[in-house]
Amino acid sequence: MSKIRVSEIFGPTIQGEGALIGEPTVFVRTGGCDYRCSWCDSLHAVDSDYRADWLPMDAYEIFEKIIKLSKGKPLTVSLSGGNPAIQDFGPLIEMGKKQGYRFALETQGSITQDWFKDLDLLILSPKPPSSDQVVDWDAFEACVRAAQQARTAMKIVIFDDEDYRWAKGVADRYSSLPLYIQPGNHTPPPPDEPDARIDMQGILDRMEWLVDKTLNDGWFAPRILPQLHVLLWGNKRGV
Amino acid sequence: MSKIRVSEIFGPTIQGEGALIGEPTVFVRTGGCDYRCSWCDSLHAVDSDYRADWLPMDAYEIFEKIIKLSKGKPLTVSLSGGNPAIQDFGPLIEMGKKQGYRFALETQGSITQDWFKDLDLLILSPKPPSSDQVVDWDAFEACVRAAQQARTAMKIVIFDDEDYRWAKGVADRYSSLPLYIQPGNHTPPPPDEPDARIDMQGILDRMEWLVDKTLNDGWFAPRILPQLHVLLWGNKRGV
Repeated sequence: MSKIRVSEIFGPTIQGEGALIGEPTVFVRTGGCDYRCSWCDSLHAVDSDYRADWLPMDAYEIFEKIIKLSKGKPLTVSLSGGNPAIQDFGPLIEMGKKQGYRFALETQGSITQDWFKDLDLLILSPKPPSSDQVVDWDAFEACVRAAQQARTAMKIVIFDDEDYRWAKGVADRYSSLPLYIQPGNHTPPPPDEPDARIDMQGILDRMEWLVDKTLNDGWFAPRILPQLHVLLWGNKRGV
Repeated sequence: MSKIRVSEIFGPTIQGEGALIGEPTVFVRTGGCDYRCSWCDSLHAVDSDYRADWLPMDAYEIFEKIIKLSKGKPLTVSLSGGNPAIQDFGPLIEMGKKQGYRFALETQGSITQDWFKDLDLLILSPKPPSSDQVVDWDAFEACVRAAQQARTAMKIVIFDDEDYRWAKGVADRYSSLPLYIQPGNHTPPPPDEPDARIDMQGILDRMEWLVDKTLNDGWFAPRILPQLHVLLWGNKRGV
């Protein structure tokens, strides 16, 4: 069985973002990413400088850890990264679903996998211009198609006016997908200082900016949500 | 056409609680309530001392105000109170839906209406022991039945251990309804001082208490959410 590079497994905690906000979950964060977003808040799971911290684990080992953390009570497992879509989660999902666990995966939509159709929720999070990445829309479209009947939602992080305009364009193109927008964290934790204090007032100001901008614009399609875990726990890792 | 006693109509803002958290919405808050919860955070819409502030409006007048606030762009209207179920919202819902508006209503589940079935979402919020109210479960059951195909969710505010145990019992009884639990606001705004400062650290502590208690208990069924508007804007009214 192939190995998955795991940066961290932690929980149970609550999902802090998007469609599953507030949902009890265990996170499996994988190491490695095909993107390098300018404002990445998870560099410890992206930058290959931290590769030595990524533990190769097979599906059995990962599921054993999930069962231990959840004391064997089924819950939603959040597959995150890095880009978790570069790993092979098919066997873990198959194994977990037999025992009643549910699986949600968040990815930028650059890489498709057959097993997307087995997810309970696929969250596609295309990266806006401020990330300095360029979205491959054919690859994104392939992800939407791969999910098939799996519930799919979109999440877009918005830092500035250009991101906002871009998000509206994407929303028009994928109007059938539920959309969640959230302000960016302009003070992502340095990877070596995971518990660094953040600029909470700035975080709140950016949320207020996004709420005001969206509502004044009469754009009522997306839900507007903060990173709840940041409001509750700052940048602290592992909660 | 019968009149509805309106305490306030405001928005667009985002829904701060429960199943629709983050959703752009206009609130219609009615005056009058058959309950007197010990920790009520909307006394200005409950206590008959404030009755003179409640404007009798018919469905046309209310819808006109909603259209003005939303600039004619359909969105979700949140019917709130007091207990909005003591008013007749049938004509407003019929009128609004024809123009693409959606309607969500939150009530404690003490009074049923035929028009519950026309809602896009009915949120039933039975009040726990700390409220000093006694739930009439036959009336609650009648609300669940009246909703029929309308999407229905449950929301329970939890202040202490007794409320928590009670919530678990209610959840067992209505396990098919999606459940949202939230910590109570122990510093509700005095009705004459709507913008009074609140004890933010206490609010955060209570959220952390509820998250820890629920997750350590292995109770993964409910989503656990704060009152987002309180985190963002304190007790400020009209946002």
